[in-house]
Amino acid sequence: MPIRIGIYGYGNLGKGVELAIRQNEDMECVGVFTRRNPESVQTLTGIPVYSADKVTEMTDKIDVMILCGGSSTDLPKQTPYLAQYFNVVDSFDTHAKISEHLKNVQAAAEKAQKTAMISVGWDPGMFSLARAYSGAILSQGKDYTFWGKGVSQGHSDAIRRIEGVADAKQYTIPVEAALQRVRNGESPDFTVREKHKRECFVVLKDGANAEKVETAIKTMPHYFDEYDTTVHFISQQELNEKHGGLPHGGSVIRNGVTGKNGENKHVIEYRIKLDSNAEFTSSVLVACARAVYRMHKDGNFGCKTMLDVAPVYLMKETRETAIAKLL
Amino acid sequence: MPIRIGIYGYGNLGKGVELAIRQNEDMECVGVFTRRNPESVQTLTGIPVYSADKVTEMTDKIDVMILCGGSSTDLPKQTPYLAQYFNVVDSFDTHAKISEHLKNVQAAAEKAQKTAMISVGWDPGMFSLARAYSGAILSQGKDYTFWGKGVSQGHSDAIRRIEGVADAKQYTIPVEAALQRVRNGESPDFTVREKHKRECFVVLKDGANAEKVETAIKTMPHYFDEYDTTVHFISQQELNEKHGGLPHGGSVIRNGVTGKNGENKHVIEYRIKLDSNAEFTSSVLVACARAVYRMHKDGNFGCKTMLDVAPVYLMKETRETAIAKLL
Repeated sequence: MPIRIGIYGYGNLGKGVELAIRQNEDMECVGVFTRRNPESVQTLTGIPVYSADKVTEMTDKIDVMILCGGSSTDLPKQTPYLAQYFNVVDSFDTHAKISEHLKNVQAAAEKAQKTAMISVGWDPGMFSLARAYSGAILSQGKDYTFWGKGVSQGHSDAIRRIEGVADAKQYTIPVEAALQRVRNGESPDFTVREKHKRECFVVLKDGANAEKVETAIKTMPHYFDEYDTTVHFISQQELNEKHGGLPHGGSVIRNGVTGKNGENKHVIEYRIKLDSNAEFTSSVLVACARAVYRMHKDGNFGCKTMLDVAPVYLMKETRETAIAKLL
Repeated sequence: MPIRIGIYGYGNLGKGVELAIRQNEDMECVGVFTRRNPESVQTLTGIPVYSADKVTEMTDKIDVMILCGGSSTDLPKQTPYLAQYFNVVDSFDTHAKISEHLKNVQAAAEKAQKTAMISVGWDPGMFSLARAYSGAILSQGKDYTFWGKGVSQGHSDAIRRIEGVADAKQYTIPVEAALQRVRNGESPDFTVREKHKRECFVVLKDGANAEKVETAIKTMPHYFDEYDTTVHFISQQELNEKHGGLPHGGSVIRNGVTGKNGENKHVIEYRIKLDSNAEFTSSVLVACARAVYRMHKDGNFGCKTMLDVAPVYLMKETRETAIAKLL
């Protein structure tokens, strides 16, 4: 019998989860839960849509609920709430608040004897794993994370809030020279500016002052002022045609030394290049839903992160097959 | 109290483990066990040397024994034997025989209520983990492993067995064009020749026929005949000076697709570049010794691989610190 998955929230991430489930023949998608009028929502693959209000009526029909809401206001409330009724997985990514979120979900899941996994995705998620393994192996060393080339939604939104801007897309780009130094085994201290640069594609409103907009972008505190930023003004048509996707990626690199006097250098790099940020995150969520289902079957309750889960739990293959095939 | 580690076998790997333990302040090295005369062995850091015959007298002084013998004849016997008395870790790397080895160690460890980890290192080991995670996430995709640039001991040995050869070092090198195609998200089928090439540095004996040696190398079945091989004849002095180390490395890459019709491509790459193959493997062994110690404390007995172990078990940090720092 396949693992029965529910999707709570139906934006880009929820749609990605719907599609990812189709790639995993040990799973089926039971339905989407939305706070909108269910009649108004059409799913990509025709799976049923339910009102979020009815979710607690479906507890015996769903093995794992994948939460696809936002980290700022949705997940801090939704994950602990739903962990009372379901095994859950979320992609909570407000780094500074993960420990607090963990505590809240742990309390709910433990009490209800459910299993939860939080902060699943690529960062936090796969990048956290890369840091964990590399740090455990190369005890004496230094970590670097480079993000991009990819679209930062937060920075794109920040530009769109500037007066005179009709639309915008912002790419975060690692500085190639810095990346190469780290890949070569050097362990420099970088300033913010030395590691990443920012490239913006901006559509102006009629009559807007391009110079003013460019200055407003480049001097925006935190978002842009510490970076070398390039601004291109383009038409809405060009933006739609050439910058419609949400690619992303990046590298986690640890440089370490071993030997009698640290004479041997080692470089470990975990690198991803994604055409679709949301669909990749969705694929991680779905693999983790499998792990949650299995841990729950084993009586392993409470709130987990990717650091807490043995890799074999995420895999479609049996342990025997995985060992024979991958080791 | 630090985790008390024993080292069984004192070649390159044993020496690497001795040095790696010094980088981990939660561990201490109790001693080295050797089948040679202990008086004849001088350790790098002055830790005591015991006869392998006395190992069973030390069961209450060692928390985890790290086995540093070879995979062809040592480990198949030593690991199941020592798992009767100790928690153990080994780097058994004969891919085709791992399942059999696992079964033997499992039987011994289970009976003795000990915890064992086998086939720890980079391949099998970290590369297996990379394949496991990437495969779990990108369900629809293809795996590639590129080895090198690095010294293959097996191929160097094979050259040294040729008549007329005094010494030799062989480098396995990925074909850059193949690597770039895979990194760009293509999923081609490669022939053996298209993926790797081989470069040999050979010292001839006095009066040996260079042309004959070169032909003997290039036509050697399995080792060289399926590859583009370059042979350089150099002096023993040059070999010692320029090719004395044992660097290695490589990449595990998975290319996968997501979306409604597989329209979005994703590339995940795990890449290592090592100055010292043995010292890196040693560092993995030591991190896994920590995991074995903790699993044993938790009553989690039997034989594990890296696929079976939650990452947090390998880490020096507490779970709380790790989550706060890495997620």
